[in-house]
Amino acid sequence: MKIAIIGTGAIGGYYGARLWQAGNEVCFLMRSDLATVQKHGLRITSPDGDAHLINVPAFASTKEIGPVDLVVIALKATANHILPELLPPLLGSETCLLTLQNGLGNEAFLGQHFGPERILSGLCFVCLTRTAPGVIEHYGHGGIALGEASGPPSPRARLVVETFQKAKIDCRLATDMPWERWRKLLWNIPFNGLAIAAGHATVADLLREPELRSEVAELMHEVIVAAAAFGHVIGSDIPDFEIARSLDMGPYRPSSLIDFERGLPVEVEAIWGEPLRRARSAGVVLPRLSLLYSLLLRLTHESQKLDAS
Amino acid sequence: MKIAIIGTGAIGGYYGARLWQAGNEVCFLMRSDLATVQKHGLRITSPDGDAHLINVPAFASTKEIGPVDLVVIALKATANHILPELLPPLLGSETCLLTLQNGLGNEAFLGQHFGPERILSGLCFVCLTRTAPGVIEHYGHGGIALGEASGPPSPRARLVVETFQKAKIDCRLATDMPWERWRKLLWNIPFNGLAIAAGHATVADLLREPELRSEVAELMHEVIVAAAAFGHVIGSDIPDFEIARSLDMGPYRPSSLIDFERGLPVEVEAIWGEPLRRARSAGVVLPRLSLLYSLLLRLTHESQKLDAS
Repeated sequence: MKIAIIGTGAIGGYYGARLWQAGNEVCFLMRSDLATVQKHGLRITSPDGDAHLINVPAFASTKEIGPVDLVVIALKATANHILPELLPPLLGSETCLLTLQNGLGNEAFLGQHFGPERILSGLCFVCLTRTAPGVIEHYGHGGIALGEASGPPSPRARLVVETFQKAKIDCRLATDMPWERWRKLLWNIPFNGLAIAAGHATVADLLREPELRSEVAELMHEVIVAAAAFGHVIGSDIPDFEIARSLDMGPYRPSSLIDFERGLPVEVEAIWGEPLRRARSAGVVLPRLSLLYSLLLRLTHESQKLDAS
Repeated sequence: MKIAIIGTGAIGGYYGARLWQAGNEVCFLMRSDLATVQKHGLRITSPDGDAHLINVPAFASTKEIGPVDLVVIALKATANHILPELLPPLLGSETCLLTLQNGLGNEAFLGQHFGPERILSGLCFVCLTRTAPGVIEHYGHGGIALGEASGPPSPRARLVVETFQKAKIDCRLATDMPWERWRKLLWNIPFNGLAIAAGHATVADLLREPELRSEVAELMHEVIVAAAAFGHVIGSDIPDFEIARSLDMGPYRPSSLIDFERGLPVEVEAIWGEPLRRARSAGVVLPRLSLLYSLLLRLTHESQKLDAS
C-alpha cells in the first residue's frame, strides 16, 4: 500500500515511521522538519523501543509524491484550509483520505472538498510530543480507532486497519466513529482545555485540587449530555473511569497546551467550538463548555498575537 | 468624628483623604506606603479634581492611634486574619467598624471577633487604582452604599453616612446591605474573575467578543439565581444594564486583575468562593461560577508561587 503522511509532527511521524518500518511505501510530506530529517533522520523514543530512522522518504510537495492509495492527514485541524490546494496531486480514483485529527468537523470538511466517499476516520489514543524537528517522544498508549466516517465498517476500512495492525500498531476497526469522536472529546475537552485555561496545568495539576478535579468530571458529564442528544450513549460511570486512568499520566502536558505554549494554533473550533455549536443546535445547554470555549478563544488569540509580534 | 483608616491602598487612601480634607480627625494606618507618604504626601488624580495632601496623619501602628469613633476597614479580605491582633487598640465602648471590603463573609468575620453590634457594612462603586506608594488614580464613579450589616438603617449608620456626605462623598444610606452585596457581586464575579481567567483582560476586552460577553451575562444570571435563593431579588434586566454601563469603562483593569498581576493575594474566597458555597448550601447549582472559581484558585495560587520565588 502506498501511503502519504500529511503533516509529520508527532502523530504523522510516529505512525508513519511504524508503517514504513513494516515495509509499506510511505511518503512523508514535511515542511519545517524536512531539512533536519533528511540530514539526521527521524528519532523516536518510546517505551516500546527507541528508533532512529535514516533515509526517510521525506518530500517537500505532494506533486513529488503523486497518487497514493491512502492519505493520512495528521495536520492540526487549524491547517485544514490548506488541504484543498495540497491534496489533489495525491488523488487517484480509489485514493482514501484518513483523518487522524481531533475533534468534530474534519470529515465533513474533507468530504465537501474531495467527496464523502473517499473519507475514512481515525482517532489516536496516544501520548506523543514532537520535542524538536525530527524528534518524537512517545510516552505511552498508542491505539487507533479507525472506521468509516459514519456507518458500519467497510472492506476498505478493514484493509487499512489490517495494514496498521501488520505494522504493530494497536489499531481496531471502529463500528461507530461518530460515537468514538464524542468519546474522545470527553477526555480532550476538559484536559486539553483546562490545561490552557488553568495556567499551564499538567494532567496531574488538574487532578490535584478537588475543585478543579470536580470541574474535569462536570465537563465530562456535559460531553455525555451533548453526545446523548445525537444518539451516542456514553455511560455516566465513564468520567470516574477516565479520571482514575488519567492519574497515571502524571505531569503529562496535553497537546493543546504544548501548541499554546509554542504560540502555535490551537484546535479551538474542532475540539470545543464545533461540539458546542452542535449541542446548541440540538437545544442542549452546556454552561461549562461554553465558558471554557470563550476563555480559550481569547487566550489562544492573545497567545498567537504574542507569537506574531 | 475620629476615624481610623485601616489599609491605605486605593480605597482607604481615596476616601480617607476626602474625610480628612473635610475636617475630620483621620488617622491613616500604613505599612508599605508610610515612608513615602510621610515624605511626599498623598497624591490623588481624579476627574473631580487632583489633590496633593501633605502632612498626612499617617501611623505605623494602631497603638499610636488609640481609640476612635469609626474604624474604616479598607484592607483586602485576604488580610482579615491580621485584624484580631490589629484592631483592639482602636476600640472604645462605642467604636464602630465599617468594612468597605468586597464580597461575602467580612461582616461575619468581624462580628465574630469584635461583636456583631459594632459592625457597619459599606460597598464602594468606584474605579480606583493605587499606581505607586502614595499615588492613587481615580478614574470615575465613587459612590458608597452604607448601612447595618443586616437589618434596616440605624441612627449610627445615618450619622456615618452624613459624615461621608459632608466630605462630598456620594454616600447613600442602604436599607438592605446583604442585597447590596449580591448586587455588587453581580459585577465583580464576572468582570474581576474573567479579567484574570481570560488572560489579563480589561473590561473592554471582556465585552469585545460575543462569546465572552455572553459569558459575562450568563455569570450575572447565575448571581441573580443565587441571590434569589436568599430572598434578594435582582431584576433579570440588570445584566444588560450593567454590560451597557461597563462599555463606558473602556480598558479598565478590575482591581483583582491588578492584584493578580502584582502577585498580591486576590480575594478569591470573598468574591467567588463564599458566594458559591452559600449557593451550594441552598441547593443552587452554578456551573459557570463553579468553573471560574476552580480556575481562579489555581491561577492565583500559581501567581503567588511565582511572586514568592
